[in-house]
Amino acid sequence: MKFLLSIIIGLLTTLSFSQNDSIFIRSIYNTALSEGKAYEDLRSLCKDIGARITGSAEAEMAIEWGKRRMESYGFDKVYLQEIRVPHWERGTKEAGWIRMKNGSLVKVNLLALGGSTGTSGRMESEVIGFSSLQELKDAPKSMVEGRIVFINQKMNEQQIQTFKAYGGCYPVRGMGAVEASKKGAKAVIIRSLGMPIDEHPHTGTMHYEDSVTKIPAAAISTEDAELLEQILTNGSAEFILEMDCRDYPEVTSYNVIGELTGKNPDNIITFGGHLDSWDTGEGAHDDGAGIVHTLEALRILKELNYRPNNTLRLVFFMNEENGNRGGKGYAKWTKEQTNENHILALESDRGGFAPRGFSMDGTDAQIMMLASFAPIFKEYDLHIFEKGYGGVDISPLKHTFEGIPLVGFVPDSQRYFDFHHAPSDVFENVNKRELELGCAAIASILYLFDQNL
Amino acid sequence: MKFLLSIIIGLLTTLSFSQNDSIFIRSIYNTALSEGKAYEDLRSLCKDIGARITGSAEAEMAIEWGKRRMESYGFDKVYLQEIRVPHWERGTKEAGWIRMKNGSLVKVNLLALGGSTGTSGRMESEVIGFSSLQELKDAPKSMVEGRIVFINQKMNEQQIQTFKAYGGCYPVRGMGAVEASKKGAKAVIIRSLGMPIDEHPHTGTMHYEDSVTKIPAAAISTEDAELLEQILTNGSAEFILEMDCRDYPEVTSYNVIGELTGKNPDNIITFGGHLDSWDTGEGAHDDGAGIVHTLEALRILKELNYRPNNTLRLVFFMNEENGNRGGKGYAKWTKEQTNENHILALESDRGGFAPRGFSMDGTDAQIMMLASFAPIFKEYDLHIFEKGYGGVDISPLKHTFEGIPLVGFVPDSQRYFDFHHAPSDVFENVNKRELELGCAAIASILYLFDQNL
Repeated sequence: MKFLLSIIIGLLTTLSFSQNDSIFIRSIYNTALSEGKAYEDLRSLCKDIGARITGSAEAEMAIEWGKRRMESYGFDKVYLQEIRVPHWERGTKEAGWIRMKNGSLVKVNLLALGGSTGTSGRMESEVIGFSSLQELKDAPKSMVEGRIVFINQKMNEQQIQTFKAYGGCYPVRGMGAVEASKKGAKAVIIRSLGMPIDEHPHTGTMHYEDSVTKIPAAAISTEDAELLEQILTNGSAEFILEMDCRDYPEVTSYNVIGELTGKNPDNIITFGGHLDSWDTGEGAHDDGAGIVHTLEALRILKELNYRPNNTLRLVFFMNEENGNRGGKGYAKWTKEQTNENHILALESDRGGFAPRGFSMDGTDAQIMMLASFAPIFKEYDLHIFEKGYGGVDISPLKHTFEGIPLVGFVPDSQRYFDFHHAPSDVFENVNKRELELGCAAIASILYLFDQNL
Repeated sequence: MKFLLSIIIGLLTTLSFSQNDSIFIRSIYNTALSEGKAYEDLRSLCKDIGARITGSAEAEMAIEWGKRRMESYGFDKVYLQEIRVPHWERGTKEAGWIRMKNGSLVKVNLLALGGSTGTSGRMESEVIGFSSLQELKDAPKSMVEGRIVFINQKMNEQQIQTFKAYGGCYPVRGMGAVEASKKGAKAVIIRSLGMPIDEHPHTGTMHYEDSVTKIPAAAISTEDAELLEQILTNGSAEFILEMDCRDYPEVTSYNVIGELTGKNPDNIITFGGHLDSWDTGEGAHDDGAGIVHTLEALRILKELNYRPNNTLRLVFFMNEENGNRGGKGYAKWTKEQTNENHILALESDRGGFAPRGFSMDGTDAQIMMLASFAPIFKEYDLHIFEKGYGGVDISPLKHTFEGIPLVGFVPDSQRYFDFHHAPSDVFENVNKRELELGCAAIASILYLFDQNL
């Protein structure tokens, strides 16, 4: 079967691209590498704006920034699409300590999880440790009640695909507070969803259930998690926690949209990243990289005077991190307010690392087309052209437009969870050349899809 | 033809490895990622020893370090192989300034090229700039005579394979002094062979010819090169240079060798990296990574109780950077002092980045075997299994043992020339997980070759 597939791909290859395509793609790469604007755009987004959580002043600034950048590049249309978004803020106070049996204190590096309630002043209690969310679920209520729960579930470093290791721990962050609260815990502290052992805490979204008391939830650095585990192995400890994060009323916000109009203007290829980030670091890899990847892709196609067959629509989605209101709002708007024909969507939200390829949530025939592009990308070191995930922002389109293929840009994932949702996700940790190669890969595949769909 | 090749590879696939191979390779990866020692070994080599240019005290320490590390891992044999090596030292004084027309001075970041003579005190002269080595060669002598030559030849950032861009500039560093001296220049300053525009100068080896006056040669940072170019575009400038680097008499040094003895003990698979580095930074990627990649590969195979068919011989080569005496000495020794049958050699000397695959300098049949391993590595994201370069250290074996295939480990190359031969080539710029994946890839392919050769 695999054998048959490779024959079919071999045959398709000759159909899907020509010498002209190769030349055009070479010019895309040359522009990205020699006259690229992505790195300076990312610097500006990270340094002139910074972290930009949904509902914050920085998020508003980022919307202005995005619209002005798109206008400055002379896209055919630039506009905002209104949505309503949640508004959670970390507040000013956020600290945690381990108090050991002998009374000595260790201050830990900690971040409230996104959406957590505060502690209403100082909270302290004995810590009860679990090595996994399952272990907490299996524990008797008497063991947990009145205590602060610590879940030290580690990302599985043996997973080559780091996103799978992340997926394995995602429920700890998402459901840790609910599961701990069901057993009467006062708060939950989780080991950060970060791959290396270091000092950076990693935040991220978490959930409550209406029927379960909302308790504070925070992540401590992997280094501190190792220490706390060691302390608990040898005896007991208390945890002291203070956080004044809270929810505010919803506010109005926007997706930012820019287009190159196609010869068939109502045939739409949507592509983009998310403009919001967490409120720590600078949202450089997550998802500043995706923003400038896709901005630069459209800029390069315009720069090279490319006249698309279909409308190439760049969307900077708002609120991917804690609600996906941008993605949902965009899908709803296109369905209800337009008569558009959506033929493909693409997202970049896995960081600004060296490109490996593209994954697609689509039919076998659609994936066959994707795979047929592989040979043209061989000289650019791309090798993943296969079935897989698209992205959070574009996922609502799947149920809105039946049969639409969703494409995810796949950069190398090995360093992503060093920085993801952490104070270290800053501009300095993005490599210029790796970023530029991502822009070129995305511009190239948009071109190929536009030519072949 | 390509089509036929893929059919043949498809058929070979089923021959070249079994379920057991897959399981064993999985255990190699698990060991590297969960119980790896490579990162700590690299930290120790970089921090306990540091930069270790051939002939230096640090190089001697590195030999001791390597021998002790190998012994501590319990390899069947550990021994030193004596060689004679050059000994060049940078000295204590090394500085350069641009003096502009109005007299104001700009201090530049500069490194003498390896092997350069000193300036015998302060040297100063008008600068004459060229955009390439060729432009210098084409210039009239009168334009160059008595001046300091500046060659601002840039690495071609449009080359996706950064090693090709490096190759394009290699003659500037290697032959710049000879070409400038032929036209009467007092010294030559080159733009560093580094990809990004930043403050780090990159050193590296350079050559003299006996019949041509030896003039001092240095590299300035790409940032300073851009500045100097700008100054020269608008007018003239002087360059002030002081360096007291010099050659010392040759000294005795060693390759460090460790082995797991094969069932066929005289069938040898040689693999390794180079223990020397330049005398700036810590030689972390170049080639600390290669040292610990290959050390860890053998440690893991031993740890997993692997009994090789052929003798697996790990060699830490000395003096790759400025003479390759280690590689030459090893080839000569094996040829003249032993009755060994050398069946393959492998080298890691392209940094500690995420693995992409392996290249081979070999016959079509040998490359076919390499390519037949590709499917087993798909889940580990390796995709390059093709004709290409082996490595400097193992290259003398090619002429010593006819028909021996030489294999080069190929990590992602995009960040390599950010650090290569520069003060920034330090431990902190090596990612733990990327390094460990390299160790596992190398251990795995050594296992496969050992099983199939």
